Amino acid sequence: MMPLTQSVLDGNRLALARLLTQVENNSPEGRSALADLFQHTGKSHLIGVTGAPGTGKSSLVNQLALHYRKSHDKKVAIVAVDPSSPFTGGAVLGDRVRMRDLSGDNGVFIRSMASRGSLGGIAQATAIVTQVFDAAGYEIIIIETVGAGQSEVDIARLAHTTLVVEAPGLGDDIQAIKAGILEIADVLVINKADRPGVENTERALRTTLELAHPTRHVFRHHGQTMTVDGADTNAKLWIPPINKTVATEGKGIVELAESIAKHAEHLRQSGDWTARDRARLGSEMEALLQETLMARFFDSIPQEKYEEVFQDVLNRDLSPFEAVKSLLDGRAGVK
Amino acid sequence: MMPLTQSVLDGNRLALARLLTQVENNSPEGRSALADLFQHTGKSHLIGVTGAPGTGKSSLVNQLALHYRKSHDKKVAIVAVDPSSPFTGGAVLGDRVRMRDLSGDNGVFIRSMASRGSLGGIAQATAIVTQVFDAAGYEIIIIETVGAGQSEVDIARLAHTTLVVEAPGLGDDIQAIKAGILEIADVLVINKADRPGVENTERALRTTLELAHPTRHVFRHHGQTMTVDGADTNAKLWIPPINKTVATEGKGIVELAESIAKHAEHLRQSGDWTARDRARLGSEMEALLQETLMARFFDSIPQEKYEEVFQDVLNRDLSPFEAVKSLLDGRAGVK
Repeated sequence: MMPLTQSVLDGNRLALARLLTQVENNSPEGRSALADLFQHTGKSHLIGVTGAPGTGKSSLVNQLALHYRKSHDKKVAIVAVDPSSPFTGGAVLGDRVRMRDLSGDNGVFIRSMASRGSLGGIAQATAIVTQVFDAAGYEIIIIETVGAGQSEVDIARLAHTTLVVEAPGLGDDIQAIKAGILEIADVLVINKADRPGVENTERALRTTLELAHPTRHVFRHHGQTMTVDGADTNAKLWIPPINKTVATEGKGIVELAESIAKHAEHLRQSGDWTARDRARLGSEMEALLQETLMARFFDSIPQEKYEEVFQDVLNRDLSPFEAVKSLLDGRAGVK
Repeated sequence: MMPLTQSVLDGNRLALARLLTQVENNSPEGRSALADLFQHTGKSHLIGVTGAPGTGKSSLVNQLALHYRKSHDKKVAIVAVDPSSPFTGGAVLGDRVRMRDLSGDNGVFIRSMASRGSLGGIAQATAIVTQVFDAAGYEIIIIETVGAGQSEVDIARLAHTTLVVEAPGLGDDIQAIKAGILEIADVLVINKADRPGVENTERALRTTLELAHPTRHVFRHHGQTMTVDGADTNAKLWIPPINKTVATEGKGIVELAESIAKHAEHLRQSGDWTARDRARLGSEMEALLQETLMARFFDSIPQEKYEEVFQDVLNRDLSPFEAVKSLLDGRAGVK
């Protein structure tokens, strides 16, 4: 084991920061450290937080982190991911607020990530960073994402418990996105609940939730026995609660943490905790496989050969499918 | 060549619909047809349209399609993609409006797609559907996406010309997303321009545009010579124009079509048309390679062997990286 890895296990923050950079850059040292650290993972509760800009997500995450620090004395890591900014690796929204509330607490570690078009993608990078925090003894890891696209869904799949945050008055147009993102929600949060329109938001969420319900069962709990009318005979059913908060005033945070704890309890009792771990590690292995197979392929073929075949595609002499087939079968150029 | 493929080239709509289903399902017939059709591609102008829900994107796309039909007598295909809905393959927003305006016109073909977690992903499926329309003689192909995540960016990369649609009064919170999505814009559209706040939206767009400018040059035009102050000595520079429209009343559509035509002209003169084709086909080939390598890998290894190694990962006895390495090197289980 490298000294750096041991320092991370010993709780050294500087070593942790350095190691995170190494694994994010996919350096040989980073990879070797990951192999050593992996046996120490599997102890954290991974909480995903997603929702549109303007819902006050960052403040909510800060308040949750403070709560876990003060009331439960748990070490908390925050991984803030912005997949909507693929070109510039800028700072994630709310970083300044975050720093004000949480800086100076050695039990909190904050890491911002932006998508950099890496081969494996942002979900994979996030998974790996999360493993480092897990091994380093962070009991609560909050993964915060902006938006509602496929990347967010992929990132949400990393978490044990996913919070979807809404706020009153963001416009009914946003409903369209909600339907998709709601299906990944384990706990729903209406933040800024002191604003007008909170009843409308709650009603809209309940309606969408009821519509989404049948799909949820089949998708999330495919191993369980369901009666025809949808009642759950195994008592394994989880219906996402709706929590109302005013994060800027710390209101509703205790109740939200209770919902999260109940969900963790539900996961453990139903066996879904293990199922989610399995799904997460399965995806990670497939992504790694893909990356490695591609790297080995490009190592195995001279660049001129690839360019030659690609030129045939550009000239419309060979379809991409035929081109790939001929490259892999070593019969490049033969149509 | 299959009779179905010939029918598509002859302009048979029913054959086209059947073939699209086959290629979307990645059937052997679909693949074989693609190989035959590919030599007939490369003639269409691919126009990407993206923007948040509530901007009136669908109406705008309809109006553009009507314009290309009436004023230019061009065949128009619309590919409506909703990557935000990964679980349910529901209809894309605005389908009803669309049908009312465009149904009964044989020169327009509309195809809705939803992400279904296919191996290759929605961008790849869209690329292939686009190729079929291209071969079938649709001179204008409009690819419409909802949202602003990584999937939308990937899909935008398929297009020659990307329109980003905004609307007044959607809230300043949305600015955060704009910064990312603006970098892919070739033409900016403020739709619903008869609404209050249009000046604010325009000002915000101009400011963001100016901030984004230096990055654009480097990213988009890396082959060109630039003077230090950013002035373009080769006259190859494209600054995204801002078009104002009221799609529901057909206002500003002619001017928007002119901006799009100017951009196409710019692409051809600067050589960027070919560069974008190259980038698109390059991505497609890599995605196909990845898919094929994975399929061949899983064919080559007994499922029990894979499960055995995966179980070691679940037990934290082997890290995912070590597991992949041992699977590929045929030394599975040996740490």
